[in-house]
Formats: sequence, structure tokens, C-alpha cells
Amino acid sequence: MEKPLDFPRAWELLGKDLFARFVGVELLEIGPGRARTRLVVEERHRNGVGIIHGGAIFTLADIAFAAAANSHGRTAVALNASVSFVTASRGAVLLAEAVETSRGRRTATYHVEVRDDLGEKVALFQGLAYIKERTTLKEGRNDEE
Amino acid sequence: MEKPLDFPRAWELLGKDLFARFVGVELLEIGPGRARTRLVVEERHRNGVGIIHGGAIFTLADIAFAAAANSHGRTAVALNASVSFVTASRGAVLLAEAVETSRGRRTATYHVEVRDDLGEKVALFQGLAYIKERTTLKEGRNDEE
Amino acid sequence: MEKPLDFPRAWELLGKDLFARFVGVELLEIGPGRARTRLVVEERHRNGVGIIHGGAIFTLADIAFAAAANSHGRTAVALNASVSFVTASRGAVLLAEAVETSRGRRTATYHVEVRDDLGEKVALFQGLAYIKERTTLKEGRNDEE
Amino acid sequence: MEKPLDFPRAWELLGKDLFARFVGVELLEIGPGRARTRLVVEERHRNGVGIIHGGAIFTLADIAFAAAANSHGRTAVALNASVSFVTASRGAVLLAEAVETSRGRRTATYHVEVRDDLGEKVALFQGLAYIKERTTLKEGRNDEE
Repeated sequence: MEKPLDFPRAWELLGKDLFARFVGVELLEIGPGRARTRLVVEERHRNGVGIIHGGAIFTLADIAFAAAANSHGRTAVALNASVSFVTASRGAVLLAEAVETSRGRRTATYHVEVRDDLGEKVALFQGLAYIKERTTLKEGRNDEE
Repeated sequence: MEKPLDFPRAWELLGKDLFARFVGVELLEIGPGRARTRLVVEERHRNGVGIIHGGAIFTLADIAFAAAANSHGRTAVALNASVSFVTASRGAVLLAEAVETSRGRRTATYHVEVRDDLGEKVALFQGLAYIKERTTLKEGRNDEE
Repeated sequence: MEKPLDFPRAWELLGKDLFARFVGVELLEIGPGRARTRLVVEERHRNGVGIIHGGAIFTLADIAFAAAANSHGRTAVALNASVSFVTASRGAVLLAEAVETSRGRRTATYHVEVRDDLGEKVALFQGLAYIKERTTLKEGRNDEE
Repeated sequence: MEKPLDFPRAWELLGKDLFARFVGVELLEIGPGRARTRLVVEERHRNGVGIIHGGAIFTLADIAFAAAANSHGRTAVALNASVSFVTASRGAVLLAEAVETSRGRRTATYHVEVRDDLGEKVALFQGLAYIKERTTLKEGRNDEE
């Protein structure tokens, strides 16, 4: 695991993420343009047919995306995400790994893979972030708008 | 509100959705090819910059999508979803409305709009579902695969 | 059909669109936040299995999206598009209709439906545009970046 | 370059792709679950602001996706694609590289990167394909539907 001090802004951002804590998503690692998250699957994460909810899988991937997008120290907010659900996992743990696929002055893109502890790919996620001018923690998603 | 008896399978499916209950997403209405959901925003739904988490917004939209996709009585599972986040909502309640935009023998598509109680559009969601042959509640996402 | 003078910038932009002309996409109409385009299907638009190419369908939808996004007079450029292909059309003509689903200061979203002359839905498209500060015709996609 | 005989069905499919030929997209290479395509940029590929048209970029990526998806010998058809446009390229040549990110019994996903000859990333593409039971060249996109 990277030391939190290496990417202080991203760790602080995720440390204050109440929904991540509520759902149970853990941030394992942040690197330059990348991050990994984990979810230990519980009954509360399941949908009406007993499989892991798309919303829980998205949340896990989205948090890896957010950590990677904020790893460079400037605030980045999600503009768009596209997710393909490829397997109904029977695993007990899900892991997401986000990798930066492009970074310009105003936008950056991330590819996130979600796997389970059985080695199955569960979902593929492509995220597009907007990079803000300012970097305080107080600002909202598109509040420059 | 539609009476639950009108769309028994979709109501049953959503009634068993543990993640929906955990996050606090309520199913307001199911019609043929459409559905509406609601989320009363609480602190636990916020992210590290204090705005409503993308994962919570996605979950709200995804559940409207699932209810609409299952409204015809055959099991439909999410293959893909694309979401654009357009406003950092300052509202206290989010509402999602899903409308069927196409339905073939094997796939169907849904357009979901998420608004808040201030009248702002918060997110736009496009969902693609796979329609299964069988319709029991016991089956998983892609278990035909 | 709207008179070109009503939306001069968007008509000018599309009038200079060499790829639209090359592929054969016609701009039928521009309104505030909306546009319609048409493609008369020819052999050159088909793929290796003899159906209309996804690239041709995307191009038709993308041009409706671009016209709608530029209808307000400020330059808008595509950041993201998600397209679901729902029917292998047997039609002779494809029509795309773009409708604005949100518009903020910096981003706007559009829902585009592609149908054929047999009344079948062919594709659904969700586009996200970035609205630029400046509005000359000389600027490129993300050249603020 | 792979010898065409190594992936005969995918090469045959792309050899018959009239839109690819019309637009000028060349298939450079097919491997197991991957493919590369190229477009030499001409004036006809530009849009109304003089940059490479999103429809041309999509078409280039889509053909790499199609070749990779059909590399295993079974017919695969596009269900969904999401594309993020990240740079207004000033290059003379675009290259797309598709890599398989998952493959199940019925669906498979592909990540496609589009770069130019200046080394800039131009677009990121995520494709979802449906794998058909039958494999003749005569069938259409979703004609099982």
C-alpha cells in the first residue's frame, strides 16, 4: 500500500467520503494516475435476484476512478462513466483497479476493471473526469458551472 | 402510484433488493416499460467534497432502470449503463424516471433522468438490458453465460 | 425545415462539415437544443455482414448531436458519446433526432434516437458536450486544453 | 502483420466491409482478441471546425473492435460503445488498437485506444459485443432478435 502521505489530497478526499464508508468500499492504494479499491461482499450489497447490485459494483469502480483522478493534486470531478457488467460474480470480495488512459489540461480518462477473488472479471468501467482550476476540498461537482 | 399487483414480478424483484433498501432508494411507481424511484438525501450519501456521491446517484437510476426493464414480466439484466453527471445538486431529494427507448427480443434500452426537488437535472443515464428466456427470481445477472 | 438564418452558426458549422458530406449525412432541421439528420442508405454504408455499419449510424447521430449542441450560438465540442445498437435495420433511410436533455454553463447532454423508414428504432445515443468560452469557427475540439 | 490465414473469418468479414473501405480504414493486424487499424487523415475526414470528425474516429475504433471481437471465429456484433474524445489531433495518421477485456459465453468487452502519429491519445473507446450462436457471414447485427 502507498503511504497516505504520498498522495495527501486524494487520501483526504477519500477519507471524507461518507458514502464509500457506508457502502464498505476501502481504498487500498493510490499511485500517480491509478488507484485500487476493495469491497467485501455482504448480504446488503445484493439485489432482488441475489447477485451483487450494479450500484455497489459501480460505487466500487467510481471510488477507484475518483482516487486516481485526484492523485495528481488537482480536483477532478466525474463527468461521465460507462460500465459494462460481464459476470454475475459468485465471489466474496470485489477488487477494482483504475488506470489513467489519458490526461489533458481539462479532462482525463480512466479505465477501471472490477474482478472478484475467484479471478473473474465482473465489470469494465470507463470514466471521464473534468479537472478543475481550483483545488480546495469545499467545492462541488460542477460548481464552476 | 401503480398498485403493486399490476407489475407483480418487478415489485417482487425490487422488494427483495437489499442494496436498494440499504442505500434508501424507494420505488415509487412501475408502469409498462417505465419506473420512478426516489432518494431522500442524507449525510451518508455524500462524497469527500460534500456533494451527493456518484455511486448513490447511479444506484438510484439503476433501480429505476431495473424496474422498468423487468416491468414486462421477463427477467432483464443490465449489460451496460452510461451516466453523465451534469449538476452538483443542492437538493434534499432526488427523483429518477426511467423510460423504455427500445425493446427487441433479446435487448432493451432505457433512458433515465435524475432530477432533484429544486427542479435541477442531476444526471442522465442510458441503460442496455439483456432479456432472458427464463423468468424465475433465482437466476443471476449473466448466468446464461 | 427551419430556415438556415435562424441558427446561422450551427448551419455554417454543418455546411463546412466535409465528413458529413462525404458520408452523405444531410442536416434536415435545427431548433433550439435539437436537430434532425438523415442518411439515405447505400451499399458503401454496409459492413462485412451486409448491414448498415455502426460507424455510419454513429456519424449520423453524432452530426445531429453536434448541430443541437451548437444551436445556441456558442461552440460546443463532443466529450463523450455512448451508443446502443438495437436493430439491424432493413430500411432504406435512417433518421436521427437529437434533443437536449440538460445544459449547464460548461457541459450539455443530448439524447439522440436513430430510426429507419420502416419505423424501427436502430440506435440510441447519449452525447456529452463541452461548451467553449469562445465561438469562432477556427477552433478545434479541445484546444482550450 | 498477422497472416490473413491465421484469422480467416475476421479477415473475410473486414475484407467485405464496404464502409471501412469507403472511409479509408485499413486493418493492420488481427490477433486473438485484439486488432489494430489505421486511418490516413484526409480533408474529407474533417468536420466544420477543421478537425478530424468524431464519426471518422469512431469508425476507426469500431472496426478494430469488430475485428478483435470476431477473431475467435464466432460472429460477434456490437451492442454498445462508449467513446471519449480527449484531444483534437493535429496528426496525419490515426491508429486504433483494440484489446479484449473480458469474454463470456454471450458477451465480450473491448478497450480501444486511438492515437495519432504525434503520439497523442485521441480517443478512448469501450465496446460491448454479443456473441452469436451461428457464424455465417450472411447474418445481420441482431437478427437473432
